[in-house]
Amino acid sequence: MNSFGRVFRITTWGESHGPALGVVIDGCPARLPVDDNDIFNRLKLDVPDQELGTPRGEKNRFQILSGVFDGMTIGTPISIIIWNNDARPESYSGGRDTLRPGHADYTWLKRFGHTDWRGGSRASGRECIARLAAGAIALKILEKFGVSIKSRIIEMAGIEVTDAKSMENARDKALEIGKTGDSTGGAVELIISGLPAGTGSPVFAKLHADLSSAMFSIGGIKAVQFGVGTEVSAMKGSELNDSFDIDKDGEIFTETNSCGGILGGISTGDDLTIKLSVKPTPTVLIPQKTVDIREKKQKTVKYSGRFDMNFVPRIPPVAESMTAFVLVDHLMLSGIIPTTKLQPES
Amino acid sequence: MNSFGRVFRITTWGESHGPALGVVIDGCPARLPVDDNDIFNRLKLDVPDQELGTPRGEKNRFQILSGVFDGMTIGTPISIIIWNNDARPESYSGGRDTLRPGHADYTWLKRFGHTDWRGGSRASGRECIARLAAGAIALKILEKFGVSIKSRIIEMAGIEVTDAKSMENARDKALEIGKTGDSTGGAVELIISGLPAGTGSPVFAKLHADLSSAMFSIGGIKAVQFGVGTEVSAMKGSELNDSFDIDKDGEIFTETNSCGGILGGISTGDDLTIKLSVKPTPTVLIPQKTVDIREKKQKTVKYSGRFDMNFVPRIPPVAESMTAFVLVDHLMLSGIIPTTKLQPES
Amino acid sequence: MNSFGRVFRITTWGESHGPALGVVIDGCPARLPVDDNDIFNRLKLDVPDQELGTPRGEKNRFQILSGVFDGMTIGTPISIIIWNNDARPESYSGGRDTLRPGHADYTWLKRFGHTDWRGGSRASGRECIARLAAGAIALKILEKFGVSIKSRIIEMAGIEVTDAKSMENARDKALEIGKTGDSTGGAVELIISGLPAGTGSPVFAKLHADLSSAMFSIGGIKAVQFGVGTEVSAMKGSELNDSFDIDKDGEIFTETNSCGGILGGISTGDDLTIKLSVKPTPTVLIPQKTVDIREKKQKTVKYSGRFDMNFVPRIPPVAESMTAFVLVDHLMLSGIIPTTKLQPES
Amino acid sequence: MNSFGRVFRITTWGESHGPALGVVIDGCPARLPVDDNDIFNRLKLDVPDQELGTPRGEKNRFQILSGVFDGMTIGTPISIIIWNNDARPESYSGGRDTLRPGHADYTWLKRFGHTDWRGGSRASGRECIARLAAGAIALKILEKFGVSIKSRIIEMAGIEVTDAKSMENARDKALEIGKTGDSTGGAVELIISGLPAGTGSPVFAKLHADLSSAMFSIGGIKAVQFGVGTEVSAMKGSELNDSFDIDKDGEIFTETNSCGGILGGISTGDDLTIKLSVKPTPTVLIPQKTVDIREKKQKTVKYSGRFDMNFVPRIPPVAESMTAFVLVDHLMLSGIIPTTKLQPES
Repeated sequence: MNSFGRVFRITTWGESHGPALGVVIDGCPARLPVDDNDIFNRLKLDVPDQELGTPRGEKNRFQILSGVFDGMTIGTPISIIIWNNDARPESYSGGRDTLRPGHADYTWLKRFGHTDWRGGSRASGRECIARLAAGAIALKILEKFGVSIKSRIIEMAGIEVTDAKSMENARDKALEIGKTGDSTGGAVELIISGLPAGTGSPVFAKLHADLSSAMFSIGGIKAVQFGVGTEVSAMKGSELNDSFDIDKDGEIFTETNSCGGILGGISTGDDLTIKLSVKPTPTVLIPQKTVDIREKKQKTVKYSGRFDMNFVPRIPPVAESMTAFVLVDHLMLSGIIPTTKLQPES
Repeated sequence: MNSFGRVFRITTWGESHGPALGVVIDGCPARLPVDDNDIFNRLKLDVPDQELGTPRGEKNRFQILSGVFDGMTIGTPISIIIWNNDARPESYSGGRDTLRPGHADYTWLKRFGHTDWRGGSRASGRECIARLAAGAIALKILEKFGVSIKSRIIEMAGIEVTDAKSMENARDKALEIGKTGDSTGGAVELIISGLPAGTGSPVFAKLHADLSSAMFSIGGIKAVQFGVGTEVSAMKGSELNDSFDIDKDGEIFTETNSCGGILGGISTGDDLTIKLSVKPTPTVLIPQKTVDIREKKQKTVKYSGRFDMNFVPRIPPVAESMTAFVLVDHLMLSGIIPTTKLQPES
Repeated sequence: MNSFGRVFRITTWGESHGPALGVVIDGCPARLPVDDNDIFNRLKLDVPDQELGTPRGEKNRFQILSGVFDGMTIGTPISIIIWNNDARPESYSGGRDTLRPGHADYTWLKRFGHTDWRGGSRASGRECIARLAAGAIALKILEKFGVSIKSRIIEMAGIEVTDAKSMENARDKALEIGKTGDSTGGAVELIISGLPAGTGSPVFAKLHADLSSAMFSIGGIKAVQFGVGTEVSAMKGSELNDSFDIDKDGEIFTETNSCGGILGGISTGDDLTIKLSVKPTPTVLIPQKTVDIREKKQKTVKYSGRFDMNFVPRIPPVAESMTAFVLVDHLMLSGIIPTTKLQPES
Repeated sequence: MNSFGRVFRITTWGESHGPALGVVIDGCPARLPVDDNDIFNRLKLDVPDQELGTPRGEKNRFQILSGVFDGMTIGTPISIIIWNNDARPESYSGGRDTLRPGHADYTWLKRFGHTDWRGGSRASGRECIARLAAGAIALKILEKFGVSIKSRIIEMAGIEVTDAKSMENARDKALEIGKTGDSTGGAVELIISGLPAGTGSPVFAKLHADLSSAMFSIGGIKAVQFGVGTEVSAMKGSELNDSFDIDKDGEIFTETNSCGGILGGISTGDDLTIKLSVKPTPTVLIPQKTVDIREKKQKTVKYSGRFDMNFVPRIPPVAESMTAFVLVDHLMLSGIIPTTKLQPES
């Protein structure tokens, strides 16, 4: 349940406040150049906005422990460890016996017989750091095959984001509400370009079905849309259908892209577009009613401690990673990305 | 890619215009009473609205070929075959060389090197009949464990559906547009009740991630939402968070249910709610531009033949089936539903 | 648990005395020519020796219900059904309450809460007929890629088989013992030729690990050996190691083949050799002690009814099928056999 | 391909001469007491015989990095890292361009486009250290459910081992041959006691099929036998079949155990017995012919460096680990071992 993928497969481990987190990437072909900078450049995206985001001072010190030798993957599992140098379990102990509303404390209690009072365990956003590390590898593979993934915030704190100015307004709004101790949400869009037509499968391994599962595996995502998404409900077939045309090289293409680059679970070759709705951070610094599981009664609690006013800026890099895992996997399954080696030995 | 599930696992087969379709259910425990009526009652939900839906006159004659003996499952795979008695491949042959806009013809051509001119092959809605048959078994298991799934149309042809009267208006609108040769879409809601708290897993096998993949595996779904869904983007944490309370028996519950019955990928014990956006039928009877793959040029085509004015009414039963597969699987994985036998031998 | 394979995946269903048995083959690429004769020619191998084998008069009437159109696979699951025209459950009812020694009656009772008194259910050798059908497809794929599988009986009824004469002696011995109501076993060898060097994986998906699991999935196999097999225990490294040499085209090869074509779980390019030890048929027509589960006491029983004096001749075709599934799967995983289509559309 | 298991699943990583090796255990239930001693006691079994085995001076310093908190598993993946403090890649560089006979150098070259001249990479016996660590957890779970696994050497250097004296003779023989620079093999037996009747599955996930795959995943195993194994070939059914009897508590049992505790892939409740044939170490210190891949010609080479005269003593602990993984997995699949938590929270 902590693994993702079929032939390109990642397994993540580590709790938010344990000594380290990590990932094992299985199925990466040999002879992909990889160095520490590839990983470093993705890990630094983890908290892109220090004011809105968590003040946790992680340095994200990491090591590649296997699978890479002399700057090149060798076909064995790539194990990457990221040390938690700023884990402070004791800072959470105030809330040890109360279930944090909007968090997974209660559902973990029912599932595993305990809550991890150190701060969310693997239900914490911190878990995603391992996905960022693995994403560096998957994105590098995709790049070699001409596939790129772009993502951006399209809504924050109730304000639509279309340009730099609206982004600034949205951020101001999120900070303003954040200063009252409350949190805000938003929405993110992903655009995948360069994906060959014919990627994906019919029926149960539809490309967008796998992508949706990837997106919902990220904490805080409550809706996933492809193409025009929820708008389809009120459209006519004649409006939604994308006409086909053919260029002078005999390449078929869709004149429009309402379908979001996918028909029947298989890519059309046009941009594949995804929209994610991100909930406001469940931790807020205002009084809330909850249950104390020792005293077995309802209480009003007010948390202090670490607080992301808005974690929407943390979604794009992890959503890109998850998207990349799905794409590499499908491109391997359809034979476009080799599973054994990317180039012969020099 | 035609199998779904981990320990409770279905495999479907069959093309829209082949001789038959079917399903193999693997992992059903022994000693569940099953008879033909269980299957029959689900298959008859396939085309609930003969006016809006396809005029295809399927009788859905079926046989249970294995896994059930003397009215009881025996722990071996349950194979169900549904004969296509109204498959008329020749009725499609007019469009043999043109790619139908909004359909998977083009993407299948790129994936498999051919299009199935007989009418959609396994990208056809007809493929779902096998899921209905298997759903009968999964729903029967869930019923024994007190879990129920209800679904209803909440939007059709652009009209919100809240009661019988608005449903009638929406249907009238869909028929009116349908008579012009155009199609319409809508939206469907599912409500799962009685699911024990603690069902699901953290990280990659989150209950709602698996459910989303199940929902998007159904043709024509373009958005999936849990709980308040897309509304989270503009909400504050203090508004969204559901307070916990405890009853006199010591049972913890959420006072509200904005989270839609899921926190951290694990059920809270409250109703789990899902919303699906359903696209208008891609087949419309009005002229469209597309490409003729023999002549390698763009053409305007106008289809005749079978035509679902609106296929939203066909979504609820298959969405219930897919939901049931995910729930049985997760309840087996968490040990609540036995994997071997449901009762000792009498 | 009734599926086998990763990307080339078969699912079998059906009980020995139900109306039919069958298989769904998922992951077969499009555009492989397949016709009924391919299946027919494999099914007729099921009971190659009517005197030694079961007198069950199966005609093995079958239908390909999906996945093949106009004599060509289309990339969708291939469903094949084989009708049981000679299922006579009533002929077993004498033994309804007694556990047959050497059979799976008792272990099924513990696993599923019942025994299938109709005659072994899916623990019967009859289950293998579905594997023969699917094997026809897998073998046809392998043939296109130059890989062949040969198998032969190397021991029967305690007599080593090296040529036609010793085969005749062994068969006479088996018949002689069979006429006393007792059964005999034997051993089978498989030789795989033409497998490209580099097929397989390190660690847990070693080629021979997957092959062993395939072989032991066949009823009655109690030992599996690769290369010189059990002889390694008493050999020295200097005797066992195969020296490498290189030919004038730069191709490396092993001068000998003690390793049986596998080193480190990956093929060397030389013949891959497997030996299987096959137990005598558990059904014998002489008195045996067992337990009556209704009367809950030990009894001496003497079975009549169908009886394979020796089922070793039935092992080669099913062992070839299982071997073929493993090889196709691994050759797809290493990119040598395409997963989507075998040739472009004509 | 570096993961093993269905619901109890381990993933190993690390090369023989990289900085570390490790394992991630996914699916371990919460609330199993685990401490460093559990791991330590298994790791120290790695080289039980310093004279016969490798002189590599590993301290096997390890850390449990996740999944355990306050001495108790918490239901999240357990990540264990074992540092290589005695990795000396440079000591191998003499043989950098020559393919070691009997090793996986050549097959890796074909699979991954390179050989790992540092000494076997993941084809090295060193890879098993991660399996020993994970085995500590699996064995501890089994112990709670009354299942024990014993293993012992039954043959070494061509001498059958039945008691302490024959073991001594065999070891002397292995040392004597070892001192000439040559290596020897042997055989190992495993006996599993306390396994509940009804564990396992029919058809493709037969308990012994999974066990065989587990055993062959260990480097150097060339034959696997269950019960009387290869002897079945020459036995009659009346000799092999184990009679059933019933005790006064109504428990059914087999009077003998020729079947080795398994019928139809499902356990009988009696001891399950496995025999493994272990090849002699491929590295020998006497001249061998092989190919130099730079010079592209055959050469005679004589290795020096680390050398296991006989690695049979290293097989029992890793075979016990692999057996334990299969058993925990099957006992979880049949609902006997819980997947979520082993005990409620105190």
